[in-house]
Amino acid sequence: MNNFEFQNPTKIVFGKGSIARLSDLLYKGEKIMMTYGGGSIKKNGVYDQVKKALEGFSVIEFGGIEPNPDFDTLMKAVEVCRKESVGVLLAVGGGSVIDGTKFIAAAVDFQGDPWNLLVKRAEPGEVLPIATVLTMPATGSEMNGNAVISRRATKEKRDMGHPKYFPMFSILDPEVVYSIPKRQKANGLIDAFIHVCEQYLTDDVDAQIQDRWSEGVMKTIVNIAPEVIKDNPTYDACANYMWSATCALNNFINPGVNQDWSTHMIGHELTALCGLDHGVTLAIVLPGTIRVLDKFKRKKLEMFCENVWNLPDGKGDAAADFAIQKTERFFNSLGVKTRLSDYGIGEDVITEIVRRFRERGAVLGEHGIVTPEVAEQILRNRL
Amino acid sequence: MNNFEFQNPTKIVFGKGSIARLSDLLYKGEKIMMTYGGGSIKKNGVYDQVKKALEGFSVIEFGGIEPNPDFDTLMKAVEVCRKESVGVLLAVGGGSVIDGTKFIAAAVDFQGDPWNLLVKRAEPGEVLPIATVLTMPATGSEMNGNAVISRRATKEKRDMGHPKYFPMFSILDPEVVYSIPKRQKANGLIDAFIHVCEQYLTDDVDAQIQDRWSEGVMKTIVNIAPEVIKDNPTYDACANYMWSATCALNNFINPGVNQDWSTHMIGHELTALCGLDHGVTLAIVLPGTIRVLDKFKRKKLEMFCENVWNLPDGKGDAAADFAIQKTERFFNSLGVKTRLSDYGIGEDVITEIVRRFRERGAVLGEHGIVTPEVAEQILRNRL
Repeated sequence: MNNFEFQNPTKIVFGKGSIARLSDLLYKGEKIMMTYGGGSIKKNGVYDQVKKALEGFSVIEFGGIEPNPDFDTLMKAVEVCRKESVGVLLAVGGGSVIDGTKFIAAAVDFQGDPWNLLVKRAEPGEVLPIATVLTMPATGSEMNGNAVISRRATKEKRDMGHPKYFPMFSILDPEVVYSIPKRQKANGLIDAFIHVCEQYLTDDVDAQIQDRWSEGVMKTIVNIAPEVIKDNPTYDACANYMWSATCALNNFINPGVNQDWSTHMIGHELTALCGLDHGVTLAIVLPGTIRVLDKFKRKKLEMFCENVWNLPDGKGDAAADFAIQKTERFFNSLGVKTRLSDYGIGEDVITEIVRRFRERGAVLGEHGIVTPEVAEQILRNRL
Repeated sequence: MNNFEFQNPTKIVFGKGSIARLSDLLYKGEKIMMTYGGGSIKKNGVYDQVKKALEGFSVIEFGGIEPNPDFDTLMKAVEVCRKESVGVLLAVGGGSVIDGTKFIAAAVDFQGDPWNLLVKRAEPGEVLPIATVLTMPATGSEMNGNAVISRRATKEKRDMGHPKYFPMFSILDPEVVYSIPKRQKANGLIDAFIHVCEQYLTDDVDAQIQDRWSEGVMKTIVNIAPEVIKDNPTYDACANYMWSATCALNNFINPGVNQDWSTHMIGHELTALCGLDHGVTLAIVLPGTIRVLDKFKRKKLEMFCENVWNLPDGKGDAAADFAIQKTERFFNSLGVKTRLSDYGIGEDVITEIVRRFRERGAVLGEHGIVTPEVAEQILRNRL
């Protein structure tokens, strides 16, 4: 096991009816900016629940944060925060709203161009406190210090991370899952599943708790997915889905292990260039990553076959075959296709992605084994 | 899954060489009281490592905290803290030293009799910040807000818990395991294993991540135990042991599940009255708890057989039989006997324990199903 540091200060308030708890958790003295997305919270009742809980608080609103939150949109919110002396940010939404709100929180006090918080991983100054009401389980952003921000003007999608970006608390009411469309639930399940893969399908460092816990999250996701994507899923399926997605990326499964994240980095480019849903990009790329990096990941692929898919025969060369077959079938069972050609994407996009990685000097994956050339192999495998 | 709140603010610094990190983690301005036990840290080199890291800091020492830390000893430390205006407590030791230090931290500012922090679970006032250097993996106290304190004068052993009792940071260097005697390692492995049982072998609330993670901790403990109790265990076995013990009781496996803790509560009485090691008391009591509460725990016992012990046939009435057989054999394999009679304990002790539970109006176990009469059945089963 590698040496590690771990700290996750976010408080979680989980369960049905927990949105009403907002009034105990926020301070009345601070001006709150409530951020949200395209308005689905006004249809599913979450907006009303939040507003009711915050009666008597000083609240301004900033709606319209788009999926893959856009730098230019967020900078408008930053201006409002500065003008209105906002003291706390309350993100009501999924990963895009929460990520965007983390960026707003960091940018308000930042000296210089806030885009450097992403591309240069610049050290933030004072970061506004953030709280969240999660409406879409997927990214884990409600309990970590990371965010991914897009810039449509330049077709870029970049990430940032810092201990100051952890929410002070997050409210997770699984009943919000009832109204999520099937496509989004499928994306969320895949996103969470692949978050675990990026922290587990690496080289083996004999970190047994972390391995068993990663397998536990993946088994749970596979087990609950058929119920979750139904029109009227049970409460417990929704609760297990919501907690799985949080635990897939709250650092509980990754202390002391090597991580990969090349599938995500390549996927971000597919979203930036072609507009594909995040979960879809991951479902496309992961099988290629497994295939091309098979030898590096061999021991973990064997564990994956045996402990997640109950396939003790998945040993040696068969491990990658079985792993790819099972994961692709799982993604397909959720209605998600897993080839670039399924989305009309061809060689020109691969060429542009490889050009960008070369330009940035990107070395991805555990131990930097995913050079631009390896990324090209991964993408060609998915044509 | 039940509704829950979760927060664990403790920072973990884990790995070989990490004791040297103390100098970055503590503030030079505060007076530190370093607490420790009977002096084993002076033999195994930990004392020297801590003192070296704290050169230039203002440090006073309070040694001699005994296993099952005694109220009267700890109150002496409280007096010193008050007189010397101590600002931070640094516990260097195992669960007893850390638990004792939590009590000291809470008692310094407490108005009234500090024993009420335990028996009345009194709300603490200001609690001194605590940091720890763990020397004995077992109790999980390095990453939770709980403590167990004894009072030899009245032969009592009681627990306390509060969010203010979480350490601000804990240093976990697995190399400390090399010098731990076999008997203590066996106790630590059993203690951690049974911590998980108390949070897992309850009634099923369909909390799948929590169940898989509990099973993962138990499988890891069973897997590494034979190597850990050797004279010269590998570093990775020590690291997996250390992180297992922390994860067995840092609340990561228990959000939204029902918990039992009757085995611990009964075990505490055996320590208080007969001086048995904590781990030994648990190894004695657990099989009785499983036997007597079989029907309440049936579904979880079946999971336990299948997922921890690889015994899919452990269904129905066979589940408790298999579970008891496997866990007793595991404890025996570590050199720990599992009957009261193995330790010369008879009916008179059972009578006294039941009398005490009646006097306190104790109702233990999930949903309070362990009345004094049920505790008596459990103990009689272990004669």
